[in-house]
Amino acid sequence: MAFTQKPLILVCNDDGITAPGIRTLIDVMNTLGDVVVVAPDSPQSGMGHAITVNDTLYCDRVVIDQNAPQTEYSCSGTPADCVKLAINEVLPRIPDLCVSGINHGSNSSINVIYSGTMSAAVEAGTHGIPSIGFSLLDYQMDADFKSSRNFVKTIATQCLKYGLPQGVVLNVNIPKLKAKAIKGIKVCRQANAHWVENFDRRTSPLGRQYYWLTGEFVNEDKGEDTDEWALKNGYVSVVPVQFDLTAHHAIKDINNWEF
Amino acid sequence: MAFTQKPLILVCNDDGITAPGIRTLIDVMNTLGDVVVVAPDSPQSGMGHAITVNDTLYCDRVVIDQNAPQTEYSCSGTPADCVKLAINEVLPRIPDLCVSGINHGSNSSINVIYSGTMSAAVEAGTHGIPSIGFSLLDYQMDADFKSSRNFVKTIATQCLKYGLPQGVVLNVNIPKLKAKAIKGIKVCRQANAHWVENFDRRTSPLGRQYYWLTGEFVNEDKGEDTDEWALKNGYVSVVPVQFDLTAHHAIKDINNWEF
Repeated sequence: MAFTQKPLILVCNDDGITAPGIRTLIDVMNTLGDVVVVAPDSPQSGMGHAITVNDTLYCDRVVIDQNAPQTEYSCSGTPADCVKLAINEVLPRIPDLCVSGINHGSNSSINVIYSGTMSAAVEAGTHGIPSIGFSLLDYQMDADFKSSRNFVKTIATQCLKYGLPQGVVLNVNIPKLKAKAIKGIKVCRQANAHWVENFDRRTSPLGRQYYWLTGEFVNEDKGEDTDEWALKNGYVSVVPVQFDLTAHHAIKDINNWEF
Repeated sequence: MAFTQKPLILVCNDDGITAPGIRTLIDVMNTLGDVVVVAPDSPQSGMGHAITVNDTLYCDRVVIDQNAPQTEYSCSGTPADCVKLAINEVLPRIPDLCVSGINHGSNSSINVIYSGTMSAAVEAGTHGIPSIGFSLLDYQMDADFKSSRNFVKTIATQCLKYGLPQGVVLNVNIPKLKAKAIKGIKVCRQANAHWVENFDRRTSPLGRQYYWLTGEFVNEDKGEDTDEWALKNGYVSVVPVQFDLTAHHAIKDINNWEF
């Protein structure tokens, strides 16, 4: 792709518009194009691909960074709502790139299905926009995003240059390491891993039982071509993700059922 | 699969535990096995694969149907939360089948990514449980589920008999037709369709602008092997759905990027 004007870049996330991760992402994107931010007004972690169908949505212009060039909107909805609103009500044209994140915490492997960060990227992908979700393997709000900057810039630049196949978006995870310790970028498949939940059962002051969801991530996938392997071995993982969920290999089997 | 005891069947949905669709599903499942219901206490439509990570969860035994054999729990969380709680806190063992629905409204094609109904089935699938999400193409709360009963029973029976490949769950959609007018069951791929949003912009009594999300479903996929084709032509559609989202075909392309 060659741009006759600066690329238009939509930025979203799921940790909320003031989270350090999105502030870093905006900074980096400002070096690549004209940036419009439409992001949730509050944290939306674990929202998956939720959309708001039974409630109203607010989407208000805000200024968070007085001297920065980007235009920003704070939205009461989910990450997917933000992208829909951006495309239909905010942006002057379809953007050249949508980036989401940088998430505070991993979205590798099966976590992709729970990820609000990735849902923004996927939503933009359904509208034909080249899109990338970025996540850093550090859940803390004071996570250090410095090491991420160059990798984010490289991957976004390549995505602007080459685009992405129709129906594909990128899930990028960055290990919690100093920039010098990161070995490079690996294109991977999603590891076949899962969560084993462990609910923390408690009793409220009024005597009612309630739960906190906690769990342990279990990766039994020994492959060296997975995102989990790459991250454990010091690489940034890039998984191309599709939203045609058809398990084509299973169609033949199920056609043998007695209907 | 041959069962030495009655199969254990977990029932969930996203319209809430009192919705007519889940009551029909419970009725049908009672003819096939021992039924445990863990379902949201209120409607969760459009929740995608959301999970509750920043809030507490309640999960209380309820009796909705005095003389019915099933055991029921009403949960304050999302469909995915319900399945996690069921597996870890409620059920005596891993169930032989998880069914979700019957949803009031379509979850065909791209709608699968927004679907709370399917998120329950996918969540159970990640735990290795054969799982099916059922939806009827009628959004009304007074939808007539009579025509669905035999198709639901047939597909669930076959799933109990043959199981499903690892990593695959079923997305079943049923056309809004009288049982006699339904031509049969077709195993399909997900149609390549998308939504064109059309936000309804309004002004609150206090003068603040807000939006309602509305839109139009656009199917440009002319294939006769898709769920949209099947439903339009009077068939029940069955799409095998996977939660390994890797776009394997795109890995080679992206390996050519200059990292």
